[in-house]
Amino acid sequence: MGPGPVNAHPRVLRAMSADLLGQFDPEMTAYMNQVMALYRPIFGTRNAWTFLVDGTARAGIEAALVSLVAPGDTVLVVNFGRFGLLLTEILERIGASVETVDAPWGEVVPPEAIAAAIARCSPSLVATVHGDTSTTMAQPLDGVGASCHAAGALLYVDATATVGGMEIAADRWDADVVTAGLQKCLGGPSGSAPITISDVAAERIFARRHVERGIRRDDIADGAAARIGSNYFDLAMVMDYWSDKRLNHHTEATTMLYGARECARVVLGEGLTACFARHAAAGRAMTAGLRAMGLIVFGDDAHRMTNVTGVHIPDGVDGESVRGRMRDDFEIEIGTAFGPLAGRIWRLGAMGYNARKHKVLLTLGALEAVLRAEGFRTPAGAGVDAALAAWAA
Amino acid sequence: MGPGPVNAHPRVLRAMSADLLGQFDPEMTAYMNQVMALYRPIFGTRNAWTFLVDGTARAGIEAALVSLVAPGDTVLVVNFGRFGLLLTEILERIGASVETVDAPWGEVVPPEAIAAAIARCSPSLVATVHGDTSTTMAQPLDGVGASCHAAGALLYVDATATVGGMEIAADRWDADVVTAGLQKCLGGPSGSAPITISDVAAERIFARRHVERGIRRDDIADGAAARIGSNYFDLAMVMDYWSDKRLNHHTEATTMLYGARECARVVLGEGLTACFARHAAAGRAMTAGLRAMGLIVFGDDAHRMTNVTGVHIPDGVDGESVRGRMRDDFEIEIGTAFGPLAGRIWRLGAMGYNARKHKVLLTLGALEAVLRAEGFRTPAGAGVDAALAAWAA
Repeated sequence: MGPGPVNAHPRVLRAMSADLLGQFDPEMTAYMNQVMALYRPIFGTRNAWTFLVDGTARAGIEAALVSLVAPGDTVLVVNFGRFGLLLTEILERIGASVETVDAPWGEVVPPEAIAAAIARCSPSLVATVHGDTSTTMAQPLDGVGASCHAAGALLYVDATATVGGMEIAADRWDADVVTAGLQKCLGGPSGSAPITISDVAAERIFARRHVERGIRRDDIADGAAARIGSNYFDLAMVMDYWSDKRLNHHTEATTMLYGARECARVVLGEGLTACFARHAAAGRAMTAGLRAMGLIVFGDDAHRMTNVTGVHIPDGVDGESVRGRMRDDFEIEIGTAFGPLAGRIWRLGAMGYNARKHKVLLTLGALEAVLRAEGFRTPAGAGVDAALAAWAA
Repeated sequence: MGPGPVNAHPRVLRAMSADLLGQFDPEMTAYMNQVMALYRPIFGTRNAWTFLVDGTARAGIEAALVSLVAPGDTVLVVNFGRFGLLLTEILERIGASVETVDAPWGEVVPPEAIAAAIARCSPSLVATVHGDTSTTMAQPLDGVGASCHAAGALLYVDATATVGGMEIAADRWDADVVTAGLQKCLGGPSGSAPITISDVAAERIFARRHVERGIRRDDIADGAAARIGSNYFDLAMVMDYWSDKRLNHHTEATTMLYGARECARVVLGEGLTACFARHAAAGRAMTAGLRAMGLIVFGDDAHRMTNVTGVHIPDGVDGESVRGRMRDDFEIEIGTAFGPLAGRIWRLGAMGYNARKHKVLLTLGALEAVLRAEGFRTPAGAGVDAALAAWAA
């Protein structure tokens, strides 16, 4: 019950025990096409270019940024937590000129502040996280794509921590590239990064296409713009592999593709609306339960992610001792925190297969017993009762 | 029965259906430590730094090169096939000054030619593939590390296609970094890249350490040398995650780690010597069988990989039609070829779980029937009989 990775859905685990297929086997390429179709509704898009990057969620981020940004390009990062810092870090290594528009940890950046920052620095790309688990905040994104496009910038969104748990609306946000991961609300393992790319962004990427020498073909021409700084993360070549061209790049991570496919089938089988409602109920129940126990929930109520809740460690309580007892006595993992919040808050997730009523209730009951053992006074049973009421609300 | 990916070992598939663990759970970190120990004998090394890169084999290559090489460094590539071209390609994107020492496709580079090339260009790194599946050749590497070190260079080896099938002797070769993949002779899926790093190479990498802002800690100091050009592939940070420091970098790809661990347990359970002998028997049987069928085996006999065999497509036979019948009538995949060999040879693999007597015999029997159907005259039963005799030899 931490901020991810979480327990995987049993159907996803079973899907990953299927035997492998050759990478150009018609059954395999049919699975690839299915994955493209399955992830479009999950990203809220009609983008043709919707596929997987072979690596963890962070690989998806780096693939997007290194393929969109050339050294010297100006990029504006919307920075409200650890993963905003990660975006700046990756962009600096790419050689971008990075500007930021910031919010304190626990708040989000007002869309008008983003628009003002765009006007100030004229970036070619605006990069933001949707939900930053380090602060439990979800950045509002309606209208942000329009602000970008009006100024000639593209919009990149990292939706790793929200995909499958909160609405991802790539098309309505006018986001050009959105990347994700399986290990949060999609209920799968880390190791595959779904991505969606608008036609405009695809055009920018293909302008940088530079097919490697060993596999050049007459029907695939190089682009005129600067070569992408990475081979593995060269989305132009990866897209040529996922297209009818079936250009050989790296060998697709077959088992992870099976897992990603089943994650999507599970979520779409439940229905996205039902899935978001279940995560919202879990977040509501967790928050109500923690408050009824006399704890103080962290961050701005209006922009809280539904699937992870930060809570202040009470004065006089040893946060790591509580986490140790939760794990050793109850086999429940809850999250620590990073940077300015390290030692100040715990983070309790309710994501994917773990966003279930009984898991939230059992976690709160366990936390109550552990806090009592650590000397913190909390009314017996109050957390669970409040959570049960809030789930139904 | 292509050059990989191949069918996975059933134990590996089952291991990947285990539920996930939190990335700092003591059970998870114990598994990580086990993986480090399991891959040392597989790489033929006592290197402390032996772990996994989260991505396909190509991710391991790029992680090694981008962490070892800074823009402007001179690197010598030993180039005898498609994957030598891949090394130059990745290095050019890193901004290295790339020199090559070449052999025609189907041959290897004499070690004395490598030594002469080192003397000519004074590289800081020599990079080579061990077995290049595009040509089926295995580069001899004894003494190459010594030539490198005498000139102040490090040696990098890509052993993706040979690991688990032919001896990898990182310590005897004096190789500083060796990377691999699971999808060939280790009998697992693509998506995890085992790597081993000598202390000298680790020192060069840690000199470039630059911990990202969101997770800096007082006990981990940055190095003085140029920052590594990628975040995801920053081996200094990945090594800090795999060490007792347990620095949070990307979320470990848990399911792939389970798979990599089980691949190693299967191979070490059989015994490396037995495993190499089985691959050698399979290669011997395949070669003898193809020759008995009247086909001409491709490349230099003295340096052939044991686990993949190239064979000329006979005049008047349509190579793709044969591959189609093999797949449609017998559910057996054999490989096509790249670059100058495209349309000229097929590549038949016998790797990992597929390097078994019955699979080689069944493949040859099927190929005989298909060639007959395509109008090629071959003595009935000769291929299978010769393979059976060669297996036992």
